[in-house]
Amino acid sequence: MQRYFVNNNSINKDLGLVRITDQDFHHIKNVMRMKENQELQIVNENGDVFLCKISKFFNHYVEIKIMTSVETDVELSTKVTIALGMVRREKTEEVLRRIAELGASGFVSVKLSRSLIKPNNDEKKINRMKTIAKEACEQSHRNKLMEVYPNLNFSNFIKFSKNYDLCLVAYEEAGRENNFSLKKLIKKYKDKNILVLVGPEGGFSEQEIEILINNQFKLIGLGPRILRVETAPLYIMAAISYETELENES
Amino acid sequence: MQRYFVNNNSINKDLGLVRITDQDFHHIKNVMRMKENQELQIVNENGDVFLCKISKFFNHYVEIKIMTSVETDVELSTKVTIALGMVRREKTEEVLRRIAELGASGFVSVKLSRSLIKPNNDEKKINRMKTIAKEACEQSHRNKLMEVYPNLNFSNFIKFSKNYDLCLVAYEEAGRENNFSLKKLIKKYKDKNILVLVGPEGGFSEQEIEILINNQFKLIGLGPRILRVETAPLYIMAAISYETELENES
Repeated sequence: MQRYFVNNNSINKDLGLVRITDQDFHHIKNVMRMKENQELQIVNENGDVFLCKISKFFNHYVEIKIMTSVETDVELSTKVTIALGMVRREKTEEVLRRIAELGASGFVSVKLSRSLIKPNNDEKKINRMKTIAKEACEQSHRNKLMEVYPNLNFSNFIKFSKNYDLCLVAYEEAGRENNFSLKKLIKKYKDKNILVLVGPEGGFSEQEIEILINNQFKLIGLGPRILRVETAPLYIMAAISYETELENES
Repeated sequence: MQRYFVNNNSINKDLGLVRITDQDFHHIKNVMRMKENQELQIVNENGDVFLCKISKFFNHYVEIKIMTSVETDVELSTKVTIALGMVRREKTEEVLRRIAELGASGFVSVKLSRSLIKPNNDEKKINRMKTIAKEACEQSHRNKLMEVYPNLNFSNFIKFSKNYDLCLVAYEEAGRENNFSLKKLIKKYKDKNILVLVGPEGGFSEQEIEILINNQFKLIGLGPRILRVETAPLYIMAAISYETELENES
């Protein structure tokens, strides 16, 4: 069933009605071509899910009736933000889509010395990234939207990292020396806030690695094969889900 | 350093020379624009890696001198073949690239009742898939090429599955009931041959699931979120690498 994230202020609790406008209105009316009385799911900003029915189409919005609340929680207990060294737009968008699907809480692009792309915090670009994340979260029936942060330069990223309980860098060299065990850290930091930085194609400079280490970042490896920039974040998200969500016995 | 897979018969052991023709010749000469004396790596069909130097360019081939053998083995000890319900070409190709990178041993497309695409074993198409797999294996510095099998219909796929020690189906419904624990199976079948079937967008028919179960396929879930067809194979490959290749302590 189709699912839409809505702002709390578009829900009228007393009347049990939701008003949907703009892009989602367009999606319901013109893309899904839904009709009155058709069912859909609504998720509010707290992650509560409601089974609803389309009540009436108006010129610029659709009114939706809440039928019942649905008990589901498919969120990862570990809150993971993926930080990606700035790469080409198509790669960034692919990572956005897949990590949203795999349960990430946040995404941020970081300008590193070997990034070939300049940061661009044009509102239109950031909104496009947010739309991609929203659609992916809706498709995979998440309870929470993945946050998309504005692009950061390296020094602001270091400040940003202070909000996290654990900060990791996927560092190719670390795979061989295996500085820290990803397994041990995932188990230890279950239910915590984790930030994971993945470099751009050219990797990190020595100076960047030094600064990261001095700021409590831990180097981790992701196995013996060389993973592309777009694949490393998926490996990390799948590993955290596998470790913390799948049953050991059955 | 650039790496190329070569057939054993293009290596002259006595002279320590390798002759590279066709696509790889074109790649070395025109894409990488390599020059005489430049270094590259060659991998033979047994997975042995050699450090080489370009010795001389001829009209239709390049001659390469073997310098020394390199000790590396980055292959997964579990041999994993991913079987994908037939989907659109771009999706198939994306899965091919990523699972090659993540260490899969084989790939096969299967025509299921809800596949929207017809099987096409046109030699050109299969060769294109093999080229994609080869390039991805070279880029991620694998020792072995990932095998690409011709597309199979469902009954031939069931016969094909008899070659494996363990056969799995990623089945959305199973995620909830959790029929079998992927964790337990990955640990138990380390160093074995595993076949994992992922459905097309529409999923499996009840009849297909029944036939799979009757043929020793085990149903597994991949966590509580709905994963797209292209993401499920990556989750499985990352999970197997994470479980079997990463250190527990450090």
